[in-house]
Amino acid sequence: RIMRPDDANIAGNVHGGTILKMIEEAGAIISTRHCNSQAGEPCVAALARVERTDFLSPVCIGEVANVSAEITYTSRHSVEVQVNVMSENILTGAKKVTNKATLWYVPLSLKNVNKVVEVPPIQYARKEQEDEGKKRYEEQKLDRLETKQRNGDVILPVINPEPHTVGYSQSSLIHLVGPSDCTLLGFVHGGVTMKLMDEVAGIVAARHCKTNIVTASVDAINFHEKIKKGCVITVSGRMTFTSNKSMEIEVFVDADPFVDEPRERYRAVSAFFTYVSLSKEGKPLPVPQLLTETEDEKRRFEEGKGRYLQTKAKRQAQMQQQAAQ
Amino acid sequence: RIMRPDDANIAGNVHGGTILKMIEEAGAIISTRHCNSQAGEPCVAALARVERTDFLSPVCIGEVANVSAEITYTSRHSVEVQVNVMSENILTGAKKVTNKATLWYVPLSLKNVNKVVEVPPIQYARKEQEDEGKKRYEEQKLDRLETKQRNGDVILPVINPEPHTVGYSQSSLIHLVGPSDCTLLGFVHGGVTMKLMDEVAGIVAARHCKTNIVTASVDAINFHEKIKKGCVITVSGRMTFTSNKSMEIEVFVDADPFVDEPRERYRAVSAFFTYVSLSKEGKPLPVPQLLTETEDEKRRFEEGKGRYLQTKAKRQAQMQQQAAQ
Amino acid sequence: RIMRPDDANIAGNVHGGTILKMIEEAGAIISTRHCNSQAGEPCVAALARVERTDFLSPVCIGEVANVSAEITYTSRHSVEVQVNVMSENILTGAKKVTNKATLWYVPLSLKNVNKVVEVPPIQYARKEQEDEGKKRYEEQKLDRLETKQRNGDVILPVINPEPHTVGYSQSSLIHLVGPSDCTLLGFVHGGVTMKLMDEVAGIVAARHCKTNIVTASVDAINFHEKIKKGCVITVSGRMTFTSNKSMEIEVFVDADPFVDEPRERYRAVSAFFTYVSLSKEGKPLPVPQLLTETEDEKRRFEEGKGRYLQTKAKRQAQMQQQAAQ
Repeated sequence: RIMRPDDANIAGNVHGGTILKMIEEAGAIISTRHCNSQAGEPCVAALARVERTDFLSPVCIGEVANVSAEITYTSRHSVEVQVNVMSENILTGAKKVTNKATLWYVPLSLKNVNKVVEVPPIQYARKEQEDEGKKRYEEQKLDRLETKQRNGDVILPVINPEPHTVGYSQSSLIHLVGPSDCTLLGFVHGGVTMKLMDEVAGIVAARHCKTNIVTASVDAINFHEKIKKGCVITVSGRMTFTSNKSMEIEVFVDADPFVDEPRERYRAVSAFFTYVSLSKEGKPLPVPQLLTETEDEKRRFEEGKGRYLQTKAKRQAQMQQQAAQ
Repeated sequence: RIMRPDDANIAGNVHGGTILKMIEEAGAIISTRHCNSQAGEPCVAALARVERTDFLSPVCIGEVANVSAEITYTSRHSVEVQVNVMSENILTGAKKVTNKATLWYVPLSLKNVNKVVEVPPIQYARKEQEDEGKKRYEEQKLDRLETKQRNGDVILPVINPEPHTVGYSQSSLIHLVGPSDCTLLGFVHGGVTMKLMDEVAGIVAARHCKTNIVTASVDAINFHEKIKKGCVITVSGRMTFTSNKSMEIEVFVDADPFVDEPRERYRAVSAFFTYVSLSKEGKPLPVPQLLTETEDEKRRFEEGKGRYLQTKAKRQAQMQQQAAQ
Repeated sequence: RIMRPDDANIAGNVHGGTILKMIEEAGAIISTRHCNSQAGEPCVAALARVERTDFLSPVCIGEVANVSAEITYTSRHSVEVQVNVMSENILTGAKKVTNKATLWYVPLSLKNVNKVVEVPPIQYARKEQEDEGKKRYEEQKLDRLETKQRNGDVILPVINPEPHTVGYSQSSLIHLVGPSDCTLLGFVHGGVTMKLMDEVAGIVAARHCKTNIVTASVDAINFHEKIKKGCVITVSGRMTFTSNKSMEIEVFVDADPFVDEPRERYRAVSAFFTYVSLSKEGKPLPVPQLLTETEDEKRRFEEGKGRYLQTKAKRQAQMQQQAAQ
């Protein structure tokens, strides 16, 4: 679809969240279709996880985003979907890969939303494809367990924070979940949640560096718990790390099922977003360093640095591999 | 894309206007892309006309609408696009043709919005395709001239109207044109206008028969004049004709460029929509007959009857032709 | 326009904020049109104030809201607009008055946004109408000055609040101002701000009483400062008073012009919203009493009680007057 002014920031770059939402809708369609392709219980695919994704080039207002999706692996109860987004300037005909994302879906029964139904297996062209898929499946399963355990953290408010401290830029928004945010099962679309997360992360980044910012990448996002229609969700973000030209922001999503439900507020999702600051000409700008004050902030900064260096090393290894080929 | 609750009426049927908007977006993308495919002035395709289109089967919330578009004819300054919409129930896999529409676009220069640029010619597989396209082109050109002439009519308010009279159901809405309604040139997308027209026509139909209604067809729509960002548009509709099971509603779109422009309010678009009334089980219901009072109303009723009988005759001829094959 | 599922809460009642946004759009259109009706500087009407308004009856999904607006007074630099909203059930034909609102607009020059242009005077049918309008004009002018002075208050976060205290239900949201939120001048529509304020107030009310709630009334709202495109706005609300069956919530809007502007965060708007709690059958429910802890909270509770008793007395006086006629 054509990118509109409402999809973009004031510099005309489309929000990463808009792209993430489109990716998730494509993934939900293809995996729901696949899981209903054989006789059996009708079901709706729910997003369980998005693998780390890089935004390779910004999309601008007036460009067309082309989204394509393909199922690349199925386990007994989950589906792996690969989604590619290309941006196309229909005036010049120029096309660019915007990003490639890998999503994991789990089919939930339409009659009993707590029941995961079985996924029809796909055919692989080569045996190695199945093996590689299985490896990816095992890896993500481990990682999901891990994030679930460190998921108890809370962002506390800070009174009168100094510029460039964590408290200075931390932000949160609340959103009442409406019918258009939800799937047929009455639960929030993963893409809607990701769009809100990107919105908060973007505000944290902009408050820190006071320039135009764009999403550079999103770390793996795990959707631990469903969020029901009528909930209030609180999306909060805080900066965890800055390199010379990038900022890492941790985002939490908490759900508050306050009407007609005896349940307490719970953590539904958490993730790390990386932003860069751009000049008016679209060049990356240096960002002010994050001032850490507490022990926790210093620890999170070091952990963020670890993730940053790991990603950098991986990218260099890939480039060398490509150069060697 | 997946149909959401906000795309539908209370019975769960997606508004014809939402479908028209999707059709127009697909047509605008393919024709803008084509018109910029050769070196030359950058341009944006503006909707000039939509041929009569029938809604063959209703689309429901949760279904996926698949839109495909193809260029079928080019004249020197215009592009004909054929758009097909299929609705797909991704749970059952069932697919149905929702409608087929033919749209005409005119490429306007990005630098000078009043200049129509030249369209690169397409290749035809067979000579007859070109000849048939040329015939369609000439026909629509004539029809556009004709509607332009009878475009001066105005809908006046009626005080205390009787049920089932024209005045009883006539309705209007106003809309302030915002940035997301507009193309890169700063003019309202044809699809946005058609969605508003369908909304008003639907209110007129529901006020008349007090049941759930759906769009059955839309007569050819001509876009005589562009509408600029910042305008207020008034969309008004009145019933012109009823058959046993259908209602015809005439809709006018007037633009009021009230800031920064010395220009008077002008008529931008007009069209006829046909609605049917549906029972809870989705069966067509008889509709109350329209009570005509003035001479003008009686004349419009007869004209509507003419269009109705003509369409019916055409459809029967097509069915006989198909049966004979 | 027809009320859609996204306009309503889970009980199907349309949000007061949606109604306020429609009212404001109608007021902005009629006053901008009037201020440009004579040769002179092109201008856009900006909302300066909304008088206290009561929501007389709830609107439901599927109903049509009819909005009509009329200019009732002009001073040299401001326009008073009276807006009426009727809800219409198009299936039964039943119509109800939803609310009547009075809005004040100020025309700002399109060329120089800090310049207020002159308003063409309207003609009054009777001299008394002009005198009464002038009286209303003077009264609102005084009230605007007054609220400006008590506008410095801030809502501080509370850690681990007890149920039914002020800290327990207080809420805030942030919103990045996009192009569709803004007028031609690039400033946020007053109606967009009011919709966000109603959203926060509704969440505060629902967190307090954990039932379905609806907006009962909104006290006069003064728009002290414009909010520019690209700002982040923080909308925060806290409960100030509860009677047996109603809750009063104070809402603040702060703007943070953080990109490309050296300016500090500032208070743009503040207002009081009153909510009632409804059972599934639409009957008003008793609400839990607000537990006040600090001196400030106790003072605000007493002030809220004052406003409550004053409004109650006014309403009784009106009813007696009507009964006597």
